Amino acid sequence: MSRRGCAQVCNAVHLDFNTKVFEKEHVKFANTEEYIVRGGRDKFPKLQQAFSGIKTIGVLGWGSQAPAQAQNLRESIADAGLDITVSIGLRKDSPSWAEAEATGFSEEKGTLGEVLDVVSKSDMVILLISDAAQAKLYPRVLAAMKPGATLGLSHGFLLGVMRNDGVDFRKDINVVLGMGPSVRRLYEQGKSVNGAGINCSFAIHQDYTGTAADIAIGWAIAVGAPFAFPTTLESEYKSDIYGERCILLGAVHGMVEALFRRYTRQVTAGMGKDEGMSDEEAFVQSVESITGPISKTISTQGMVAVYNMLDEAGKKVFQEAYSASFKPAMDICLEIYEDVASGNEIRSVVQAGARFDRFPMGKIDSTYMWKVGSSVRAARVEDNIPLNPFTAGVYIATMMATIEVLREKGHPYSEICNESIIEAVDSLNPYMHARGVAFMVDNCSYTARLGSRKWAPRFDYILEQQAFTAIDSKAAVQQESISKFLQV
Amino acid sequence: MSRRGCAQVCNAVHLDFNTKVFEKEHVKFANTEEYIVRGGRDKFPKLQQAFSGIKTIGVLGWGSQAPAQAQNLRESIADAGLDITVSIGLRKDSPSWAEAEATGFSEEKGTLGEVLDVVSKSDMVILLISDAAQAKLYPRVLAAMKPGATLGLSHGFLLGVMRNDGVDFRKDINVVLGMGPSVRRLYEQGKSVNGAGINCSFAIHQDYTGTAADIAIGWAIAVGAPFAFPTTLESEYKSDIYGERCILLGAVHGMVEALFRRYTRQVTAGMGKDEGMSDEEAFVQSVESITGPISKTISTQGMVAVYNMLDEAGKKVFQEAYSASFKPAMDICLEIYEDVASGNEIRSVVQAGARFDRFPMGKIDSTYMWKVGSSVRAARVEDNIPLNPFTAGVYIATMMATIEVLREKGHPYSEICNESIIEAVDSLNPYMHARGVAFMVDNCSYTARLGSRKWAPRFDYILEQQAFTAIDSKAAVQQESISKFLQV
Repeated sequence: MSRRGCAQVCNAVHLDFNTKVFEKEHVKFANTEEYIVRGGRDKFPKLQQAFSGIKTIGVLGWGSQAPAQAQNLRESIADAGLDITVSIGLRKDSPSWAEAEATGFSEEKGTLGEVLDVVSKSDMVILLISDAAQAKLYPRVLAAMKPGATLGLSHGFLLGVMRNDGVDFRKDINVVLGMGPSVRRLYEQGKSVNGAGINCSFAIHQDYTGTAADIAIGWAIAVGAPFAFPTTLESEYKSDIYGERCILLGAVHGMVEALFRRYTRQVTAGMGKDEGMSDEEAFVQSVESITGPISKTISTQGMVAVYNMLDEAGKKVFQEAYSASFKPAMDICLEIYEDVASGNEIRSVVQAGARFDRFPMGKIDSTYMWKVGSSVRAARVEDNIPLNPFTAGVYIATMMATIEVLREKGHPYSEICNESIIEAVDSLNPYMHARGVAFMVDNCSYTARLGSRKWAPRFDYILEQQAFTAIDSKAAVQQESISKFLQV
Repeated sequence: MSRRGCAQVCNAVHLDFNTKVFEKEHVKFANTEEYIVRGGRDKFPKLQQAFSGIKTIGVLGWGSQAPAQAQNLRESIADAGLDITVSIGLRKDSPSWAEAEATGFSEEKGTLGEVLDVVSKSDMVILLISDAAQAKLYPRVLAAMKPGATLGLSHGFLLGVMRNDGVDFRKDINVVLGMGPSVRRLYEQGKSVNGAGINCSFAIHQDYTGTAADIAIGWAIAVGAPFAFPTTLESEYKSDIYGERCILLGAVHGMVEALFRRYTRQVTAGMGKDEGMSDEEAFVQSVESITGPISKTISTQGMVAVYNMLDEAGKKVFQEAYSASFKPAMDICLEIYEDVASGNEIRSVVQAGARFDRFPMGKIDSTYMWKVGSSVRAARVEDNIPLNPFTAGVYIATMMATIEVLREKGHPYSEICNESIIEAVDSLNPYMHARGVAFMVDNCSYTARLGSRKWAPRFDYILEQQAFTAIDSKAAVQQESISKFLQV
């Protein structure tokens, strides 16, 4: 499991939380320890106590997560025999209104209503509207909440927005984080999204009632998370927004553009471009290799296993590629982290949202390379996809760079693994393997798409300008960097 | 002259200023009017009155502008028969100390000293240290200034930094802007930099003594500016930082990378890549065409002349390229402007400066394309460089997009022309023509280099993803956009 690979990488912060209802498990890996909570249907009987005082849960929105969360919650609550109403809040003219009705929510039953009406009647408000809508609507949503109610966020983005605006949450509510970004990130229409099976981060940002931790964990269990890991709202939004700009989305896109170009030209050995690979072969050796065998190997056996599978010549190529790529990739990763932490990145996302009417975000999936990809995927024989050692070196160096910045910045272990490895190899890369990297980008949330469009080309350029030029000029392999990787 | 091309493009704000010494000229172009001041040696007799009360001018730094400015000032003051000392302020251990001595400044004569000593003795302090040093040192420099002294800035960057820091200039000094960014941007070592002949923007940000305008204009005239145009510190730093990220540097770099790739592959007509141009030919049709005939034509006859030189087939290609590129280019231009205006861009530059020790900024001039460029330039026959209509359409669309954003944001006419057209075709592009675009980027100020590295790849990607795909899918030419351009 990829978690194994994480163990020695991360130097996690210690996060504790105060639950009266659930059991904490103390998990120790190498130099790091954490408390986690195990979910599962057998914990449903505890939901009554966890949700004590909650009569109505308002779920706002009907986008990527809301349909799954609302239905999972409704069923879990029914199975647990609780008298809690799950109610959907939408704009009256929302095209989702009919969809929510089709899944059994209705005005007549009091389970579907106008956003602020639902907010004002709910003891827990789960905010699942888009980032752009959150940035615009939060003052009204917060103002409409009951004192003592719990605001449930699906990620920490809103905290970043409010920091930029210089405002705080009102003090007489609980503010908790539940669910991770995985579900949120994947919302291609028609894809069956189900909370079950997705591990979940949770955080207690404000505990006005003294029961916020149990509400947050209860929420995670009720939507079906098998494990729940503690974090903070701040740590979550930083690592979330950062991760999707790095190895999860932005970096992998930029990297394959650079690799594809390199392989078609292949000047490495001083050859003319006619001696480069065909476009199809270049696509296989770059994109297919990453989303196929490299990801699968990391997922099941860890990063070092990829290296160990190579023959001696392959190991040499991997080392050269890894050694030359790690520092340039980390240069961009660190810039991204600091742009996220300083509020720049969220400010840019909010500003971009305001330009969409005039400059709608275009698709990126129509360029020549992705047309090649489409025909390559159509003709794919899975077992024939090679594990390209150069591609592996660049990819794993960038993954390690993504990890290293989060580690330096003190993020919790489970969060680092999730935002750098697990979500990549177990969630996004398999999706990219099916539909292509550019298609994945085009079908993410605005925040992720904007981030990927902004940073992919930066990774592309720095790899070509710094890493590939170093390799082609036969720069010495930095043994320290390789040794550090092999000790992971 | 390219100014002619500007006239109908710009909708300038009206800026007036209060000079008791110099003559204002009222300039009217089409829908816009402005006051300017004409410089020249015949105005030297007025310097005595303009610099009334100034006994010492301290010039801080010895980088791109300081040697030229300090020497021009010293000579102009001597020619005007004034008793004003020009003194250089440097760190005692600065490697520039000896260079300043070699041009006749010395401790003995009281014309060379430690930075803060020089500040505390000067009636006018001209701040010509690097942006990074300004961001770090400004609190100490401001604190050391005499009450009633004049702070002369070479551009508005410091205002952006201080806004991000939430602080203002102390109220008992004058704050003026003199000189434009042109000289500052060009500082490749060994290049003879001389203020003479460079038009100059000036601004009066704080007028404590009531004589700030005359000091600012006097400064411009004393360093040899033939014309001085009024702006504001805010307008100047926004347009300056914006312009170098757009058509002046970032956009032109990203654009030629995208064009070079396109021409070598040339899938336009559904051809395989073997039917694309040779690398050398692709470089000529992209980079050489822009920095050569396209720039020269715009400089001498304006943008529309480029179009008018084309035959009917060429005009059609130009229209397709222009029409498809204008909106994607403007999308990025507007994003850049808003990132500059919100403080994001300056914050990023300051953050990057703090990472340089660990991640020094690498050169970008070593990639395959720029090696091709080097051999193309070596074999160049100037008269054989073609005016490629596709390249011209993309380039001029991006120039127009750069202009349009500044126009919408209300910048003064002369500033728009300078930051979008004049500096490009009369200053930077000729330099790029001699040494290459990437080399130019590598030899600019940190602020410009960082900006170009950040935004060039964004222009590259959006042109390939949005503009070229639209052209290849035979999207209709947007006649409105073409008509608007032809009316310039």
